[in-house]
Amino acid sequence: MVDGCPPRLALDAADIQPDLDRRRPGQSRLVTQRDETDQVEILSGVWEGQTTGTPIAMLVRNADHNSGAYDHLSDVYRPSHADYTYDAKYGIRAIAGGGRASARETIGRVAAAAVARQLLTKVAGIEVLAWVSAVRDIDASADIDPDAVTLDDVEADPTRCPHPAHAASITSAIEAARKAGDSLGGIVTCVARHVPAGLGEPVFDKLDAELAKAIMSLPATKGVEIGSGFAGTRLTGLAHNDAFVPGPDGAPITTTNRSGGIQGGISNGATIVVRAAFKPTATIASEQQTVTRDGDATTLAARGRHDPCVLPRAVPLVEAAVLLTLADHWLRQRAVDIW
Amino acid sequence: MVDGCPPRLALDAADIQPDLDRRRPGQSRLVTQRDETDQVEILSGVWEGQTTGTPIAMLVRNADHNSGAYDHLSDVYRPSHADYTYDAKYGIRAIAGGGRASARETIGRVAAAAVARQLLTKVAGIEVLAWVSAVRDIDASADIDPDAVTLDDVEADPTRCPHPAHAASITSAIEAARKAGDSLGGIVTCVARHVPAGLGEPVFDKLDAELAKAIMSLPATKGVEIGSGFAGTRLTGLAHNDAFVPGPDGAPITTTNRSGGIQGGISNGATIVVRAAFKPTATIASEQQTVTRDGDATTLAARGRHDPCVLPRAVPLVEAAVLLTLADHWLRQRAVDIW
Amino acid sequence: MVDGCPPRLALDAADIQPDLDRRRPGQSRLVTQRDETDQVEILSGVWEGQTTGTPIAMLVRNADHNSGAYDHLSDVYRPSHADYTYDAKYGIRAIAGGGRASARETIGRVAAAAVARQLLTKVAGIEVLAWVSAVRDIDASADIDPDAVTLDDVEADPTRCPHPAHAASITSAIEAARKAGDSLGGIVTCVARHVPAGLGEPVFDKLDAELAKAIMSLPATKGVEIGSGFAGTRLTGLAHNDAFVPGPDGAPITTTNRSGGIQGGISNGATIVVRAAFKPTATIASEQQTVTRDGDATTLAARGRHDPCVLPRAVPLVEAAVLLTLADHWLRQRAVDIW
Amino acid sequence: MVDGCPPRLALDAADIQPDLDRRRPGQSRLVTQRDETDQVEILSGVWEGQTTGTPIAMLVRNADHNSGAYDHLSDVYRPSHADYTYDAKYGIRAIAGGGRASARETIGRVAAAAVARQLLTKVAGIEVLAWVSAVRDIDASADIDPDAVTLDDVEADPTRCPHPAHAASITSAIEAARKAGDSLGGIVTCVARHVPAGLGEPVFDKLDAELAKAIMSLPATKGVEIGSGFAGTRLTGLAHNDAFVPGPDGAPITTTNRSGGIQGGISNGATIVVRAAFKPTATIASEQQTVTRDGDATTLAARGRHDPCVLPRAVPLVEAAVLLTLADHWLRQRAVDIW
Repeated sequence: MVDGCPPRLALDAADIQPDLDRRRPGQSRLVTQRDETDQVEILSGVWEGQTTGTPIAMLVRNADHNSGAYDHLSDVYRPSHADYTYDAKYGIRAIAGGGRASARETIGRVAAAAVARQLLTKVAGIEVLAWVSAVRDIDASADIDPDAVTLDDVEADPTRCPHPAHAASITSAIEAARKAGDSLGGIVTCVARHVPAGLGEPVFDKLDAELAKAIMSLPATKGVEIGSGFAGTRLTGLAHNDAFVPGPDGAPITTTNRSGGIQGGISNGATIVVRAAFKPTATIASEQQTVTRDGDATTLAARGRHDPCVLPRAVPLVEAAVLLTLADHWLRQRAVDIW
Repeated sequence: MVDGCPPRLALDAADIQPDLDRRRPGQSRLVTQRDETDQVEILSGVWEGQTTGTPIAMLVRNADHNSGAYDHLSDVYRPSHADYTYDAKYGIRAIAGGGRASARETIGRVAAAAVARQLLTKVAGIEVLAWVSAVRDIDASADIDPDAVTLDDVEADPTRCPHPAHAASITSAIEAARKAGDSLGGIVTCVARHVPAGLGEPVFDKLDAELAKAIMSLPATKGVEIGSGFAGTRLTGLAHNDAFVPGPDGAPITTTNRSGGIQGGISNGATIVVRAAFKPTATIASEQQTVTRDGDATTLAARGRHDPCVLPRAVPLVEAAVLLTLADHWLRQRAVDIW
Repeated sequence: MVDGCPPRLALDAADIQPDLDRRRPGQSRLVTQRDETDQVEILSGVWEGQTTGTPIAMLVRNADHNSGAYDHLSDVYRPSHADYTYDAKYGIRAIAGGGRASARETIGRVAAAAVARQLLTKVAGIEVLAWVSAVRDIDASADIDPDAVTLDDVEADPTRCPHPAHAASITSAIEAARKAGDSLGGIVTCVARHVPAGLGEPVFDKLDAELAKAIMSLPATKGVEIGSGFAGTRLTGLAHNDAFVPGPDGAPITTTNRSGGIQGGISNGATIVVRAAFKPTATIASEQQTVTRDGDATTLAARGRHDPCVLPRAVPLVEAAVLLTLADHWLRQRAVDIW
Repeated sequence: MVDGCPPRLALDAADIQPDLDRRRPGQSRLVTQRDETDQVEILSGVWEGQTTGTPIAMLVRNADHNSGAYDHLSDVYRPSHADYTYDAKYGIRAIAGGGRASARETIGRVAAAAVARQLLTKVAGIEVLAWVSAVRDIDASADIDPDAVTLDDVEADPTRCPHPAHAASITSAIEAARKAGDSLGGIVTCVARHVPAGLGEPVFDKLDAELAKAIMSLPATKGVEIGSGFAGTRLTGLAHNDAFVPGPDGAPITTTNRSGGIQGGISNGATIVVRAAFKPTATIASEQQTVTRDGDATTLAARGRHDPCVLPRAVPLVEAAVLLTLADHWLRQRAVDIW
């Protein structure tokens, strides 16, 4: 359900589907082999190919769900998954598909973000693009130019790492992990280009704060950085500060971008750069120590079809987090720019 | 202004003041020498030493403000500060004290968090404690046991690094940076102990997402981690997962805590561990390249009394972010635990 | 979409359907003869007959929609309808079924309120009941005892006026209006019994304020009263005040209820009494003066199947407004009653 | 605290004070004789006579409070006041000045609304004006032309009834009530002129719904009407509908205004007309039956300085409710009007 999309924006299901397809299970041999076509149906908010300004409801039905696949989990908590915490919170064990904690929920984020992308691309001129910059210790960050990478570069390989040599290493690592009944984590980098200066609110709803929340709300994230991030703590102020120089249109621009496009919580017109850390997939085929719902010690080796590494499919999720946050703030800024 | 504090909680200004004093300028030679007593006045919401349940308004007036100290900035943008972005957003240059982007605003967070601390400590039994774990490349993280450190340990040294040897190195580094007209960044670690399992909401308002937002809304933060954070991306699932074993009261506990106390966005009863990256202070005495409000190139060497390193004073800020987030979710959980 | 329903509440579609049936078109000859079965499908939030605590999505598809029925309206604004204002707001004329302004949207309110009713009835012991107290100048208010009327009384007649003689007059009036190509308005009274004292928030989110908003957001409402309402302005304070006397369980009770169960915006334990004014249906078969989308004067006589009087079908809508407001405040009060 | 005011709006305390003075106690012999100067101090959000875009904090301190004046109430509940409900909600009896339920809180609404008035008047061209249209059974409604009445007309008499003959009757009635230890209620009418078509949101946040909430959140209100209100329920659709005709600038206008300027929850460009019912003041000098906090029957005759009729001072409160609601929706509409 998307509320707040302005009216008269061209939109139909064909605008949504490509992003859903980038997130879809079964899209390559690197990801889970569940077969979901994930076809979106627009229920409301669009009339004759245009948004109406009222809420846009979209529906994607599960096709290849197999509740029985989860029966062996009904009485046991998967380690580092949400099974125990949901039970602790709600006192109910709704297991099929992982319930609300299933990464399946992210389809809604991607669908909503596809609407945001229409607004940002067509109206605001903003481009959002993410890619896999690291898997385990295979770190391509230093070899990828955030200002140059394109969607074609990212989509050229199933890993969504736009550096072919590193992509090949990542592919091997993921296949080895799958065979070993193990899993891998990694880092997604996301840029937002041509964001106007001025987005973000003072104090609590800073743009970086909202981006951090959006990204950290994605399944399996354990960290987020803006600009220089943790590495920036090792520089001194003189080395870290981004010097201003006059820009081509008169507005100041920075000669470096350690700020990651955000200063004082508000965009400064430079490219926004965020990085998200994804832990290795919790669900693995190897046997692990755990407890039953009754509190008894047991072991568990997960069955079913799971991603040995979520990174390739996490790319559209990180884009979604950034797109939705930027669309919100771009619209909020309309009530500031009244003159 | 604090809304949502339950009634009949013992509270007076003496409960707020100690946390304000930990944040106060001039508290040691390591921090800015502005002299603010930061005395809090409770305007509403407390009656005869107890909260009334209605909003608690608190007022702290600036004493040692010297607007003239900012006159030289009226027409120039400080690098890596919010001067330019606020001007871009609002079209006005309200310079005194940095305006709404001044770190002075954090006094409100600390005052509000002192109220939250009363609730969490006295009613929920939750303890929140932060400390400086790194400054520049002086990293005490591996030498501090997050389960053992106490408030006394933290407050024993003006650096708020609870490891004496590292604290001494940090002190030297800060003093050297000040003399050099430079500044340093670092990392604050914060734990929340005895948090009940079940706090946090599905999907968007996950506990880690809300913590990330709260922390990333603090001035100068560039990164946040929960549990294993970015380092966790280098482990495999088998090494990263936290095994469950039966706990002393029947509830499962984890043998490790790479989850940082949060699984699927919901607390699991283990200690919550978060890390916040603070960039080196943007305001430095050394001369830097920048532009004027009219778009002309110029240079700037900041005058005034600034922190060469915000880390010691950032400790109560990180605690505030965590306290306010936990208090909110502890209260929200009341509407879930209805049986 | 219902968020915030506590977990482990028994719920299935059969709990929702009866309220939808009371709102359904075609349920009697007094209302629109469109034939909608309005079968609800629960998409999420319920597991094995119990709520999971996570959002409950429900879907009701239109069956008897006939977009062509609205073709004659594509270029003309119906008087006193939302056609013009939606076009002015959004710049788009999405006519089928009236778009988002169609009273068809109220099916979502009734479905959501059926969930709230489960919570309030089974857990909080609160009963919400509405009825038609007036149609045009046939005013049964003085002849109906708000403390005695039952759901059976209300449902005994298609008018939902629990006073048989007035109900008969109302039936005649509605049938006459239909034949005349005209329409009628009236008043719905709603009570909430056994509401605990203490619900409602100070200042802005007073219980009566929230009830007024919920009711005034229903289609066709033009007024709302709590307790003595407009008539109360003609009494003096001495005559209007509700005297307190000791109640059976020690808590004070009032000897009269001109407050309508709410004092200072907070429930006082007495029955909450609200009244909602519904204007006569805007869509009528008689010819009326209007303008086209291009600004030309024209006339319009509505075709299609419309309610000559919305009052009988408005009863579950008013109940929905009250149920949802009370459920929200009952849950909010959980964070106040912490001791 | 006002958040969301756009930047660069001229504002200083002198823009706020006149509205506070219209609400001030002691302004005429018809109202409470407490002597409060109600001088406002702007704490933040204004820089050199212009709003900065960041929150505007304003402070008005009580001068003539006399907590001792409430000592006789510490153990007794005033009938039809909030004493009992606040105690039931919060379990605390914070009596001085009535606590958060005191009408003293409305000073914040009026101060905030004075800011909204600057925006609406200077930028949006909207005028909001209220007056007393009835006190007890002295009803001037039919004798006042809502399109013609001016602020000077309203302020010409301490009653704020812009019809001199009725104003004289109201004055006599209020003075008689005061002498009798009794009190009076009445009706305030408020218009908003030159509101652009398109303000208000679909479904829940309709403009009339938000106005109803804002008005019903004012102390002592028991009813609210938009346009034809309850009287409109006695008309048929043919008589009630507002015919459209082409307007001078091409947009349709209505020949009548039973809609009160709002159709389908969205403004249609006609004058918005709302009416608010205020009950007679609950605090009266006559002896009344009540109970103590311990549950014992007792009697109470209020002492202190109270308004025998709140209507004259309620006029700026109703304006405040309308101003704040319109400013909010005018700003929200900026995110819809993006083309």
